[in-house]
Amino acid sequence: MTVQQPRTGVTLADFDTIMREKVPFVGDMGVVTEQLSADQARLRLPFNQRHIRPGNVICGPAIFALADIALYAVAWLVVPKADLAVTTEATVHFLSGAKPGDLLADAKILKAGKRLLIAECHIRSAVDGALCAHVIGTYAMPPEPR
Amino acid sequence: MTVQQPRTGVTLADFDTIMREKVPFVGDMGVVTEQLSADQARLRLPFNQRHIRPGNVICGPAIFALADIALYAVAWLVVPKADLAVTTEATVHFLSGAKPGDLLADAKILKAGKRLLIAECHIRSAVDGALCAHVIGTYAMPPEPR
Amino acid sequence: MTVQQPRTGVTLADFDTIMREKVPFVGDMGVVTEQLSADQARLRLPFNQRHIRPGNVICGPAIFALADIALYAVAWLVVPKADLAVTTEATVHFLSGAKPGDLLADAKILKAGKRLLIAECHIRSAVDGALCAHVIGTYAMPPEPR
Amino acid sequence: MTVQQPRTGVTLADFDTIMREKVPFVGDMGVVTEQLSADQARLRLPFNQRHIRPGNVICGPAIFALADIALYAVAWLVVPKADLAVTTEATVHFLSGAKPGDLLADAKILKAGKRLLIAECHIRSAVDGALCAHVIGTYAMPPEPR
Repeated sequence: MTVQQPRTGVTLADFDTIMREKVPFVGDMGVVTEQLSADQARLRLPFNQRHIRPGNVICGPAIFALADIALYAVAWLVVPKADLAVTTEATVHFLSGAKPGDLLADAKILKAGKRLLIAECHIRSAVDGALCAHVIGTYAMPPEPR
Repeated sequence: MTVQQPRTGVTLADFDTIMREKVPFVGDMGVVTEQLSADQARLRLPFNQRHIRPGNVICGPAIFALADIALYAVAWLVVPKADLAVTTEATVHFLSGAKPGDLLADAKILKAGKRLLIAECHIRSAVDGALCAHVIGTYAMPPEPR
Repeated sequence: MTVQQPRTGVTLADFDTIMREKVPFVGDMGVVTEQLSADQARLRLPFNQRHIRPGNVICGPAIFALADIALYAVAWLVVPKADLAVTTEATVHFLSGAKPGDLLADAKILKAGKRLLIAECHIRSAVDGALCAHVIGTYAMPPEPR
Repeated sequence: MTVQQPRTGVTLADFDTIMREKVPFVGDMGVVTEQLSADQARLRLPFNQRHIRPGNVICGPAIFALADIALYAVAWLVVPKADLAVTTEATVHFLSGAKPGDLLADAKILKAGKRLLIAECHIRSAVDGALCAHVIGTYAMPPEPR
């Protein structure tokens, strides 16, 4: 099966740069862009001992940060200059404790309207594949340039 | 008006220590506990240039981290050892761009059941008081010790 | 204190008609518009034995229907022809069992943008005032007529 | 592929009866249970002209009612007497206008804990298969009988 390329032409290296330069709070976490297709993105959060919380699991805010940037990535799949796309809302469900280890975020577009993009993201442990969290959220797309 | 004290006796200094020692991802952000009462908590996120995102506003994951720790704080208001209280879900709405500057989180208990705690959190700019975000979420409380 | 009138001029009778004619599923439930101001609406759901579920409380879908129409009401407070305003998402938290009796919905605008309206709604029992549910949601506003 | 049966032994006819007798608000809508397996349920909402709202699409509250009862169905897949299982929260995203016609709800368990069940539900048009809504929510499970 051929994976369809992003129609905006954004590459893995482009989005790694976007994270580092435009969203340093997330860039500093060392998130890596692993896959980008027409409507999906996979990002990886490398394990960091400082992300641990009681119960020896990765804390919710680190998981949310990964999901939010993965949703931002899919906005870049459909709009050429998505800098100003902003999350308007997001709902996260934590399904199982995320064991120490890398996390993978798989974000997928559910609806790409002119004004709103709705996407969901599954967060899994790269250690054992367990589904740790589900996030669904909305991005308000930047007005089209004239 | 006298503010009612937390029935668990948790103090501002206690919760500052909890953040630094138990949730270092958030502790490293320098969040400060400003008020704790019987059912409310106020925490402050000091401004950090690395929290900025395109549009010159504070990024969503930094805001979510502040809200999540404020919801954790209110769990400590009702359960003596809330280490293992865990967020099961949270919904965040971003209402206006958070200008560069400190943010204040006001968390309030909506329902304190034996098994679940539901609380909401308003995030405001300490610069101009603008309401930046609303978060509502659920904490699963740790089973009572026998 | 003078309550500020809706800037669209929509009246209680107008919105009762809107419910009955445009959203008959809700109109058939007998919901009544009790107050409309510049940014708030209060609606009442009269008690109906067929809304009961196990535990002798009002079922979730009836509560959601009341909240959703209250959020629709506040859209009519800011846009003259809000027929085509649509909910894009909503999150409901059920806080306590709603005893048999009327329910009151108080909806309030949190953000009124050109494209999106975010509002919250508190559902209380008219019997004892208990807070039964909290709903927060987004309406996509109809494009402005040219 | 063999579909695994519900471990509680609940049948299609059982759940149809549960809806009609225990949740009449939904029972009156004529919802039909079409499939039940170990962790999934499919229910159908027959089209009713009174469910229509402006834009000639099915209104949000009717869609939410269908999703909520589908989430209730999956609670019955894992607990023998789930009468008192209650929704604690749910988030719905409306993805596309639901054309006049039957709707299908596919609910699936994401996490079945002792105390909480988290499940999601996809609502599709039976006319053209379009994904109309996504709902994710939590059920608090009844305490185990002693």
